[in-house]
Amino acid sequence: MSGAIERPRRRSFAADEIARLLEGRLDASAGAEIPPAVDGVGDLASAGALDVAVVFDAVRGETARASDAGLLVAPAGVELGARAVVRVGNPRAALVVLLELFHPRERRAPGVEVGARVAPGARLGEGVFVAAGATVEDGASLGCGVEIHAGAVVGRGVEIGDESILHPNVVVHSGTRLGARVEIHAGSVIGRPGFGYLREDDGRQRRIPQVGRVEIEDDVEVGALCAIDRATLGVTRIRRGTKIDNLVQIAHNSDIGEDCCLAAQVGVSGSVEVGARSVLLGQVGVADHSRLAPETIVGAQSGVVGRVGPGEWIGYPAIPAPLARRAYGLLAKLPELFRELRRLRRAVDEPSSRDAG
Amino acid sequence: MSGAIERPRRRSFAADEIARLLEGRLDASAGAEIPPAVDGVGDLASAGALDVAVVFDAVRGETARASDAGLLVAPAGVELGARAVVRVGNPRAALVVLLELFHPRERRAPGVEVGARVAPGARLGEGVFVAAGATVEDGASLGCGVEIHAGAVVGRGVEIGDESILHPNVVVHSGTRLGARVEIHAGSVIGRPGFGYLREDDGRQRRIPQVGRVEIEDDVEVGALCAIDRATLGVTRIRRGTKIDNLVQIAHNSDIGEDCCLAAQVGVSGSVEVGARSVLLGQVGVADHSRLAPETIVGAQSGVVGRVGPGEWIGYPAIPAPLARRAYGLLAKLPELFRELRRLRRAVDEPSSRDAG
Amino acid sequence: MSGAIERPRRRSFAADEIARLLEGRLDASAGAEIPPAVDGVGDLASAGALDVAVVFDAVRGETARASDAGLLVAPAGVELGARAVVRVGNPRAALVVLLELFHPRERRAPGVEVGARVAPGARLGEGVFVAAGATVEDGASLGCGVEIHAGAVVGRGVEIGDESILHPNVVVHSGTRLGARVEIHAGSVIGRPGFGYLREDDGRQRRIPQVGRVEIEDDVEVGALCAIDRATLGVTRIRRGTKIDNLVQIAHNSDIGEDCCLAAQVGVSGSVEVGARSVLLGQVGVADHSRLAPETIVGAQSGVVGRVGPGEWIGYPAIPAPLARRAYGLLAKLPELFRELRRLRRAVDEPSSRDAG
Repeated sequence: MSGAIERPRRRSFAADEIARLLEGRLDASAGAEIPPAVDGVGDLASAGALDVAVVFDAVRGETARASDAGLLVAPAGVELGARAVVRVGNPRAALVVLLELFHPRERRAPGVEVGARVAPGARLGEGVFVAAGATVEDGASLGCGVEIHAGAVVGRGVEIGDESILHPNVVVHSGTRLGARVEIHAGSVIGRPGFGYLREDDGRQRRIPQVGRVEIEDDVEVGALCAIDRATLGVTRIRRGTKIDNLVQIAHNSDIGEDCCLAAQVGVSGSVEVGARSVLLGQVGVADHSRLAPETIVGAQSGVVGRVGPGEWIGYPAIPAPLARRAYGLLAKLPELFRELRRLRRAVDEPSSRDAG
Repeated sequence: MSGAIERPRRRSFAADEIARLLEGRLDASAGAEIPPAVDGVGDLASAGALDVAVVFDAVRGETARASDAGLLVAPAGVELGARAVVRVGNPRAALVVLLELFHPRERRAPGVEVGARVAPGARLGEGVFVAAGATVEDGASLGCGVEIHAGAVVGRGVEIGDESILHPNVVVHSGTRLGARVEIHAGSVIGRPGFGYLREDDGRQRRIPQVGRVEIEDDVEVGALCAIDRATLGVTRIRRGTKIDNLVQIAHNSDIGEDCCLAAQVGVSGSVEVGARSVLLGQVGVADHSRLAPETIVGAQSGVVGRVGPGEWIGYPAIPAPLARRAYGLLAKLPELFRELRRLRRAVDEPSSRDAG
Repeated sequence: MSGAIERPRRRSFAADEIARLLEGRLDASAGAEIPPAVDGVGDLASAGALDVAVVFDAVRGETARASDAGLLVAPAGVELGARAVVRVGNPRAALVVLLELFHPRERRAPGVEVGARVAPGARLGEGVFVAAGATVEDGASLGCGVEIHAGAVVGRGVEIGDESILHPNVVVHSGTRLGARVEIHAGSVIGRPGFGYLREDDGRQRRIPQVGRVEIEDDVEVGALCAIDRATLGVTRIRRGTKIDNLVQIAHNSDIGEDCCLAAQVGVSGSVEVGARSVLLGQVGVADHSRLAPETIVGAQSGVVGRVGPGEWIGYPAIPAPLARRAYGLLAKLPELFRELRRLRRAVDEPSSRDAG
């Protein structure tokens, strides 16, 4: 049925099957009972007898020993008593495998729902889903398996690659191209004309038409309620594999490198270059025309101006992290510093007052 | 009629009725004329002869004496001359009573409008309103008197308690439960999968499936364009009575206590705990795994890391407010401090240069 | 046809026509070949033989000489070799003229699309466009040439002046008036009830009804995903000609002067006054009841408290820029300062230790 949700079947796996899938070793020493099967993954606090749960490190050992989980997954060396445990090298990677195993992605069944507004000139690949209430304008092109959810708007001539998903109420303006497996979360606005004005002699601001493009490459994920503006001329580009959290702003003509990670509420001004594999933590701001080297990490709330990185940078303006940590830590000692300085000044300038002070 | 708006009747109250409702005392000394009735509440600048207006304190006394308001409400001790005044203990509380009196909330008349998309498997309580252009997916459950406005999307299996309101274009994803009298303002996105990736050896980021829930308890209000993400495992929780302003981000697995207040553009990272009755002012950022004690106040734009509160905290990173106010105030004196230090150094290191310096 | 897009015809202009339109001088010295015509404007990197491109200054001279653009536009004094150049006084203004020339604004053809929800009591001027999936409620009034795009919601009684545009999924609540030529970008929410509560003795927060208005004057542009709240009583006002970027918050009862510029992610608290022609850079926060003088510039991420301006202000809290630049620059030297101070203290307090230190 068009638009129906394909529910995954309930899945169940034996403990040794779990061990094999995690490339781990099933350990039931100390007389532990091995559950016949598990059919879910939970956190240590809420998992039950039919669930597997992951212990990241020894700090969580006590919580783990108190957990009702039927099967634990843990790195070597975490003491868990008489429990069925799959020992693994990387428990976080194991959690991802388990989550994917028990919660495979749900995809919408193909079809254009009644109430979807698809222009006659739009091209739809195999297996496309368009929800009721979504709009696909003339000349737009949707690759195979693309999902366009309720209230989303795909502007004239927009190209969207295979298996990409626009969640509800996403707006993709004309002049945008999305690669394959791009996911844009609810409410985001891609490709609105960038923010550029010329202040005239009478103080009024004249709009600089923004006629460039936005290109979002393969495997990019954009969070909810983000704004990525089209370029004045040329391209605003988000390169392959970059992940962007909610409420992020990316201004015209910026270029975000491959496999970057931008946390929530980050703001990137115009004509910025962010090197590959860089990480911008929450609420970071980047001034226009800044350049971040590949593999730069910018601490939360920091303000980047000019050329920074590689390595970790922090502060307002951002400076290398070791220095910033010392400097901002000393901020709280400024009152003490000023008192001490006054005392020294008296001691130096009026040596006679010294004993009296 | 389905979807029609129930307009409140125009209301009119005698001055002594107002005094009684405010639990105040009508004072018309100095020969002031008492208006026969008032039928609206205004601010001092724009209120007319048929309006009541509230004077908060003596600072606004002169504005109040110049006001055309037919009836004033004021605390004792504010000199207002020959005016009809209702004297009250708490003028701000009186304003709320007056606003509620003259502007009772308008509710939509029950009904599912033509053009609403309600799945056959959704359950609708008594008196529900669903606007044209709204979507309610399979298995969703709407309590009595719930309003779902145009463009809003209620995901599969979402539960919404009595009298809750989703404003236009709100998206509530599958895996979310809202309590009673919850109000979510336009454009907010609740329950999108949280932002979690594992960086692999080749630098690519692998998505950590986010399969937990969001629970928003009774009497919570969420502003426009907020994002509240679902947990990886477990729950992202907003507890009873908390109020959230616009453009706020709350990441996966965080827990916001009862009766908190989060101002606009606040960002709360993952696995944070905010204690009851805490107040986060505008643009505050909270690092992941931080813990705020109950009744913590965090100053605007501050950055919280680790354990803070109770009481007022300010700064980047946030420190107790009295210290922060002194320290940040001294920032502006750093240039002077450096100059003074250079002078002292010369005086100490080269005593002979002292008179020449 | 209703809802069809009026495509501009492809335009072509001779070089001397371009020179005349830019009020410049065509210079083809050194035997440069003048192209018979140009039919587009590009940036230096991507422009081809039929494009005109603009050189802003001498710094870009080398890029310009390497460009394939058939015609260049540049200020006097930028050496460009044997190229056809239009010399102009203000190259940025010339770019705006060229962009407008080759990319005239596209307007939607008038008409109410099938699937638009327009209440019988709404008033529509000449030439109005309402997209399928848009909602116009009772008593709303749309001036001539207004465009309401898909998913946008115009609340009961809202007034919108001539030629204004609401992009997809914009929500304009009841109690709002927009002037002429106002443009609101996708997803913004105008006129939601402001964020005001009264903390009661038991710690619960009682909503203060917000019954005022929002007024947005002529020629204002509001970016994507902005929130502008209605006043408690009175008006939240955005004055003529002001331009607002994406993800900006403006709280109840604030007043933003004429021709201001607010960059992305700015947050303005309640009852703030911003003077005309002020510029707030990205992520600035303004505390409630602050007053910014006309022609104030606030640096990115700064926090404004109280009365500031005119001129440039920076920092947290914002102080005059020359002082702030020195002070924040010295932050990185705090560790060194503390070390030096310790040394001096030893020298002063224990003179005998001096040579040993």
